[in-house]
Amino acid sequence: MSQPFPPDRSIPPQPEQTIGELGEQALLTQLQKFSPAELTGDDAAIVDLPRKDALVVSTDMLVENVHFSEQTTSAFDVGWRGAAANLSDLAAMGATPIGITVALALPPSTTLGWVLAVYEGLTAALQPWQTPILGGDVSRSPVKTISITVLGQVPQGKALYRHQAKVGDWLIATGDHGASRAGLACLLHTHREELVTTEQRNLWQRAHQRPQPRLDLVPSLLSLETTIGAMDSSDGLADAVLQICRASQVGAELWAEKLPIPQGLTDWVGLKTAREWALYGGEDFELILALPPVAAQQWLTAIASLDLPPDRCPRVIGQIAAGTEVFLTSGNGVKEKLSLQQGFQHFHA
Amino acid sequence: MSQPFPPDRSIPPQPEQTIGELGEQALLTQLQKFSPAELTGDDAAIVDLPRKDALVVSTDMLVENVHFSEQTTSAFDVGWRGAAANLSDLAAMGATPIGITVALALPPSTTLGWVLAVYEGLTAALQPWQTPILGGDVSRSPVKTISITVLGQVPQGKALYRHQAKVGDWLIATGDHGASRAGLACLLHTHREELVTTEQRNLWQRAHQRPQPRLDLVPSLLSLETTIGAMDSSDGLADAVLQICRASQVGAELWAEKLPIPQGLTDWVGLKTAREWALYGGEDFELILALPPVAAQQWLTAIASLDLPPDRCPRVIGQIAAGTEVFLTSGNGVKEKLSLQQGFQHFHA
Repeated sequence: MSQPFPPDRSIPPQPEQTIGELGEQALLTQLQKFSPAELTGDDAAIVDLPRKDALVVSTDMLVENVHFSEQTTSAFDVGWRGAAANLSDLAAMGATPIGITVALALPPSTTLGWVLAVYEGLTAALQPWQTPILGGDVSRSPVKTISITVLGQVPQGKALYRHQAKVGDWLIATGDHGASRAGLACLLHTHREELVTTEQRNLWQRAHQRPQPRLDLVPSLLSLETTIGAMDSSDGLADAVLQICRASQVGAELWAEKLPIPQGLTDWVGLKTAREWALYGGEDFELILALPPVAAQQWLTAIASLDLPPDRCPRVIGQIAAGTEVFLTSGNGVKEKLSLQQGFQHFHA
Repeated sequence: MSQPFPPDRSIPPQPEQTIGELGEQALLTQLQKFSPAELTGDDAAIVDLPRKDALVVSTDMLVENVHFSEQTTSAFDVGWRGAAANLSDLAAMGATPIGITVALALPPSTTLGWVLAVYEGLTAALQPWQTPILGGDVSRSPVKTISITVLGQVPQGKALYRHQAKVGDWLIATGDHGASRAGLACLLHTHREELVTTEQRNLWQRAHQRPQPRLDLVPSLLSLETTIGAMDSSDGLADAVLQICRASQVGAELWAEKLPIPQGLTDWVGLKTAREWALYGGEDFELILALPPVAAQQWLTAIASLDLPPDRCPRVIGQIAAGTEVFLTSGNGVKEKLSLQQGFQHFHA
């Protein structure tokens, strides 16, 4: 981590100033205001661990025009989504957050206002989980790049893993899927908007711009006396099910009529597209869980007290089966095999 | 963290293949071979903590043509230096490493061979400290970018901090300074090479290309019953002394005749340049320590048993003084005030 040093200037930094004009040390001074003073300012940040748990760590890199663009994502939302995606990785392991580090590489023409807005977005997404920014690094680059590493902890032996699904387990999605994709369609005006209510548009755009990681479900999941297969659905519901099945060496059946399609979406884009978005849309940041039926029922009963909104209520969407293939089955007997081919590949054109 | 998936191809990946041809999942499969199998492959890596210590975390971003260039730095050395710089941040806090995460953003035209060589460099620099690569992320970018986060731990209350220097403390440099800068001069052929022996050139180039973090000194430092002011000298000896003094609200006197100038450097570039490189060259990744005289003497006696090579032996270079200014003093009475103005600013031209 770089070190603080007060800028040699009497005029306070202005949001429209570029970071090239401002200089590295003055920028770091601005960014340190987002971190607890007792944690930062040395070669590394130090945080006392409350318990001798297992440490959980995950890292993500966001690159302009690959993961976000000036046109569709505000700086605040870049920060929010970056923090939310990393917290979602923790939730998928059953971990609670300790803190994040943020490394920024930015063109000198970037304004201070843009950087501060990213940090405000990060802070807002972290705030419900009282998670501090532990520190970071800033440097120069021709392209805006943000690397976030999240640290969390989980009681030893209690982590959720992809490889823990067993034949007969219920498959549970913790909320609607396709809402983020629908929100993107609203933002890009790709579909006829007169068929969408203002309420729906707001809900879906919010799902896309301000996703909420499911850390709220972690305590109740950890209290279950069973092993849980789990993954987050950042790369899509179908991808999560396929990854869980592959890691667990099992197959699965997803029930088409039980797909957690957002209310009103089928009316808007038709059943075929709605199912496609639910399966492959991605970025909903819900959890996909594989739980033995008794534990699943116990859990669904227990979380009723959380009073969750309908779009964020866990529901059964299928079952783990023998074999290695994942099918989408309909009540009318139609059976479709799902594959990862529709998945996102960063390096292909 | 992204997830593994076996590539659908029968030909094994070749080093000259580009990662665009290879695809993200096949690349991740290659990179996972560098990590312990039990740690990776889920949404995050999990590592059991041996003790309930304080957690130490630091992060660094390396950008092509800012921090390294194809011309002067091999992929292996990019990895080595990245790992070494992060381990050095841990050493400066008195911490021992737990592991690192690596996020890569790369142009699709990058060859698999380049990426594997970066990982080989990382692995080689981590190997003496039995430190695993805990996982990472790969994505696309127009410019090669590497973000490394290092995790370590330190017994609670034993961390070394910059702000712990006290008036009267001895200032100690743990080894030669300026060797990395001299190695760069050899590599760039900027100075008359017939005045340098092959042995010196090898030693200095090695200091530049394969810096060794001073984790070897951490156990003996932690065993001292005193508070220690400390920082690593990655940004130069003068910068480290100035930062320690600023954080501790003290001044210091550096003794010009005691500057840890590499043997033979003065003969090569003259005393003025040799002192400049020792003070401002940077990237030596030694430690600068402020220790009460009794503890310092005790420590210097204790580490004699480590049988360190002469260029890596800690030695006293000055003393912490009242005030806030840092002076370089000579036996002939000449006194020069040091400042951070010569320091590196990432955003200025």
